[in-house]
Amino acid sequence: MKITPQDIVGLVGILPTPATPDAGHWSSQNTVDLDESARMTEIVVSAGTDIIMTTGTFGECASLTANEVRDFVGCVVDTVAKRRLVFAGITTLNTRDTISRGAELIDAGADGLFVGRPMWLALDDKLLVRFYKDVAQALPGIPLVVYDNPVAFKGKISEGAYRELAALPEVIAAKHIGGAALDNDARTVGENCRLLPLGGDWLRAAQVNPENIKAGWSGAVACAPAPLNALSRAIKAQNWTEAAKISEQCQWAESAMFAGGDLTAFMDYSIPIAHLRFEAAGLIKPGPCRPPYLDLPENYRAGALECGARWAKLQKEYQNV
Amino acid sequence: MKITPQDIVGLVGILPTPATPDAGHWSSQNTVDLDESARMTEIVVSAGTDIIMTTGTFGECASLTANEVRDFVGCVVDTVAKRRLVFAGITTLNTRDTISRGAELIDAGADGLFVGRPMWLALDDKLLVRFYKDVAQALPGIPLVVYDNPVAFKGKISEGAYRELAALPEVIAAKHIGGAALDNDARTVGENCRLLPLGGDWLRAAQVNPENIKAGWSGAVACAPAPLNALSRAIKAQNWTEAAKISEQCQWAESAMFAGGDLTAFMDYSIPIAHLRFEAAGLIKPGPCRPPYLDLPENYRAGALECGARWAKLQKEYQNV
Amino acid sequence: MKITPQDIVGLVGILPTPATPDAGHWSSQNTVDLDESARMTEIVVSAGTDIIMTTGTFGECASLTANEVRDFVGCVVDTVAKRRLVFAGITTLNTRDTISRGAELIDAGADGLFVGRPMWLALDDKLLVRFYKDVAQALPGIPLVVYDNPVAFKGKISEGAYRELAALPEVIAAKHIGGAALDNDARTVGENCRLLPLGGDWLRAAQVNPENIKAGWSGAVACAPAPLNALSRAIKAQNWTEAAKISEQCQWAESAMFAGGDLTAFMDYSIPIAHLRFEAAGLIKPGPCRPPYLDLPENYRAGALECGARWAKLQKEYQNV
Amino acid sequence: MKITPQDIVGLVGILPTPATPDAGHWSSQNTVDLDESARMTEIVVSAGTDIIMTTGTFGECASLTANEVRDFVGCVVDTVAKRRLVFAGITTLNTRDTISRGAELIDAGADGLFVGRPMWLALDDKLLVRFYKDVAQALPGIPLVVYDNPVAFKGKISEGAYRELAALPEVIAAKHIGGAALDNDARTVGENCRLLPLGGDWLRAAQVNPENIKAGWSGAVACAPAPLNALSRAIKAQNWTEAAKISEQCQWAESAMFAGGDLTAFMDYSIPIAHLRFEAAGLIKPGPCRPPYLDLPENYRAGALECGARWAKLQKEYQNV
Repeated sequence: MKITPQDIVGLVGILPTPATPDAGHWSSQNTVDLDESARMTEIVVSAGTDIIMTTGTFGECASLTANEVRDFVGCVVDTVAKRRLVFAGITTLNTRDTISRGAELIDAGADGLFVGRPMWLALDDKLLVRFYKDVAQALPGIPLVVYDNPVAFKGKISEGAYRELAALPEVIAAKHIGGAALDNDARTVGENCRLLPLGGDWLRAAQVNPENIKAGWSGAVACAPAPLNALSRAIKAQNWTEAAKISEQCQWAESAMFAGGDLTAFMDYSIPIAHLRFEAAGLIKPGPCRPPYLDLPENYRAGALECGARWAKLQKEYQNV
Repeated sequence: MKITPQDIVGLVGILPTPATPDAGHWSSQNTVDLDESARMTEIVVSAGTDIIMTTGTFGECASLTANEVRDFVGCVVDTVAKRRLVFAGITTLNTRDTISRGAELIDAGADGLFVGRPMWLALDDKLLVRFYKDVAQALPGIPLVVYDNPVAFKGKISEGAYRELAALPEVIAAKHIGGAALDNDARTVGENCRLLPLGGDWLRAAQVNPENIKAGWSGAVACAPAPLNALSRAIKAQNWTEAAKISEQCQWAESAMFAGGDLTAFMDYSIPIAHLRFEAAGLIKPGPCRPPYLDLPENYRAGALECGARWAKLQKEYQNV
Repeated sequence: MKITPQDIVGLVGILPTPATPDAGHWSSQNTVDLDESARMTEIVVSAGTDIIMTTGTFGECASLTANEVRDFVGCVVDTVAKRRLVFAGITTLNTRDTISRGAELIDAGADGLFVGRPMWLALDDKLLVRFYKDVAQALPGIPLVVYDNPVAFKGKISEGAYRELAALPEVIAAKHIGGAALDNDARTVGENCRLLPLGGDWLRAAQVNPENIKAGWSGAVACAPAPLNALSRAIKAQNWTEAAKISEQCQWAESAMFAGGDLTAFMDYSIPIAHLRFEAAGLIKPGPCRPPYLDLPENYRAGALECGARWAKLQKEYQNV
Repeated sequence: MKITPQDIVGLVGILPTPATPDAGHWSSQNTVDLDESARMTEIVVSAGTDIIMTTGTFGECASLTANEVRDFVGCVVDTVAKRRLVFAGITTLNTRDTISRGAELIDAGADGLFVGRPMWLALDDKLLVRFYKDVAQALPGIPLVVYDNPVAFKGKISEGAYRELAALPEVIAAKHIGGAALDNDARTVGENCRLLPLGGDWLRAAQVNPENIKAGWSGAVACAPAPLNALSRAIKAQNWTEAAKISEQCQWAESAMFAGGDLTAFMDYSIPIAHLRFEAAGLIKPGPCRPPYLDLPENYRAGALECGARWAKLQKEYQNV
């Protein structure tokens, strides 16, 4: 059964990759805590999360070995057990490694792939589109979610490039950075590609562009799947009052992270911030960060912990709803 | 009486510059709504705001004419009537224009100056320090607040440059961008220069570095001076429980702006976002934006309005406290 | 007589602003060396330079006072005495100041204006186009040369924005940054707007796009007008062999500046580099830099001096041709 | 025999990785042209190049598979046959993969490693130093050349970080970006770490800082090893007149690449530019680029070809010297 943009509806939950206690040291191998990974996946799926994605930025795609990505995605796929679509992150430093990894993870049972572009040098529009075309040609029929992260991949995907990417049948969605470009990009891609806004902007974006925006992503499903899925249900039911209330609560939780200012430097620490957030939320055990993204300045620590604590409150409020 | 870093205590409120109805058109002159400016200043001062600053980024230092800056600062100074210290923003494209403007505004009654550096070309550490030395030498004894805004001025002030700036007697404080560098920069400058964190991070920063962090800045005093001054009183009284509660509320208000993601592009729209925020908060009439910073993408509009609405709620909650 | 894009043909020479001996100090006023300015202008015009532009980046538009810009442009206009078109640079921090300055310099005899956009905050496409529309509406019929400098003005002018700018009758040309975008931008604007490549790329660009590229700019006419005008004549005469030879010589002269690497930081020092280059070339006396752009790291000094020395050699070779 | 900073003297030649005719397609594997790789290495070594480095940016470290890196470095090591030191590039997306690759290539016979840092997220000073400490601890006694490329790795290595890196016995040198920071960084690291300037700046830097600057790097040894080694010999012999002459010729060759302007975008195309340069120089057969770095805008093509042609002229001039 072919997966299309119309299948991307609801909450897209992005998972962290739980780590063994020794994961912070360069000498460690097999640092995926597979028991915790299975437990986490079950929690997220049971809570109703519609679609699962793995190994993006805070899921440590960069700092996992190829073996660890395979083990983790295998574990997630087995735990999900076809109850949901699973998109596995396969960003590497080049086209061929990304294709190899993609083929391997599809063999391991992933339904589709979550694909950032190589980042040693910035790719211009032409090379960026060519990269996704190559991946699509190498893995025909495999659904791809484009990863649009200007900080990681050295540039925003332009409107022109989105137009060309949306024309590829394999490209069914894109994790979008949000901000000024979202509404325009959503109009550009139309029905050929689902753009995924950040959870906190999902409601607003869906109201502006109800044809395209039918799903939103969150990196906090392993903190608090209950409120996020409640938001998803409210948006699907077009219960705008309820959605607005939960949306505001989710923003309140996330906002703790930004209290310290300097938004431009914030994303450099997204991996250690995520670990602290999961730790403080208490639902799963993230374990230590993997090298080299081991630490963060004091200034961001308090906000990350407070963010986790707020998600924990919301989880408590919504878990029995 | 000489003003020293020890005089910079409490809430530093940064004012917008209320605009006449025709201010959005290139042909308009004298676009400062002076009646509203006086009314706003009185509101902010009466609410207890400890120190007043003008004409930073959202105060439209860039897009006011020299005459308008003079008229506005004159109006603020007259309204404050020596009840508070007033620091007037004098950032221009070069050292000499900044010095001339500074001399003029000191003559008009400002107590000190709020100084960003020229930004056509980025200044390296040596030239940056030289710029502030030149201003200090030209205006001896006039207290200066350094404006550290990496996006506007093309680079963060480094730890080494802070060390040299703090050694200038005229430099008594710096409006800091926050983030990773704050705690370290605060240790570096020690008692010679007050670093001003963003309101939302003030409490945390003050607990980490109680010797240096005794004041915080906010651009929302013209939205809601009551909760911000309540926060200031709580921090001064070391009433941490109360401060934490209000701090969280302020973060909740501010957070509405960030819901849409793409934090890196956010600051490009800080002027129109501020106008919407003040409009929605309803306490003052900001009037239209001045050219060229006239508009913002849809995506940021909703968040700005929501932010203003939240400040209005907090103002209502705290105004009679 | 209306000036159109078709009038922009040949070498566009951009002038520095010669400084009095005390120009480096913040206390100096009237720092334009008017005698040297007149002498320089006469040299550049006599050498055949087709079009004159003033007060761009290295012409210290940022660090001249409004009075000094007026005095300098007046001097250039008087010296040129209608033998050539003169475009005066009017970049400021906002739309209204740019318009006022433009009106003043047109009154002083400039034929057109050289216009960069306000740079405190980056302008998106919509606001950027609106800025130029406002200037064109305020100064109807006055020919404008757009200044496209991504480092100074925080972003490249996009293809879409060029399309809209070219549709404004007042916008007759743009000083282009060159690089990857030039050929494409030139196709986009077609005959409605002349794109001006850097001298060293003029020959190549003219061969790729002979319809649009009929003029090139150089900031070295005050170093060595003779070889640059010889290049201009060769390109106009379609004497490609001769043009290739001179083009290579000009590149050789310029290349001395880039020997030290770190191209990304290079432009931060373009003002002091230019002063050293003119000094070493020996044709004019640039005088000291104006604050704050007073100095450069050692590493760039040698290259700047060598660059000037090479231009001096070429001037000697071509001055009697 | 332990390799120390004092062993890094003369010309450090960085090699491209010759590609098989099908290397541009995503489906190709084993794309290293090993015969040509051996032939190229022999040419470079026979010409006198003092030290060999592989798999940096234009050597396509990013777009080679792990197998291909191993095959290529093995081939280089075998061809060099202990006549020179060989440093193999091992930059990956994380600490552990870099360590594994380093261990493998040392086993294959490399004398040392050329190490850029992970780049998905920017590393601050603390994490950057920790990364190199981890690599040094994992590969004790193995000499490391730090790769300081601000565009690729999202930030310049600061003076403070250089100080700490130089204190690691394994860190014996750093490929430096040049520019403003070089002289200062060289003073900072002193005798503990050799900083390698770009060939065109080597002479100047060596005269400013003769204690530290005893070697320079070039990516053009596979275009024209003869003039570069002649430069190296002249500098070693302190024959400054001869060195200045050759240095200028080398700058003349390189300068063709910069003619088109827009220096800030230039580096995004360094891989395809290098392929064209080698092709035009004619000494080796570089073969096609590997995905995704497959192509470049027209504007850079002419300059790259001209650059290669100039190197070919210089090679002819110096090959029998």
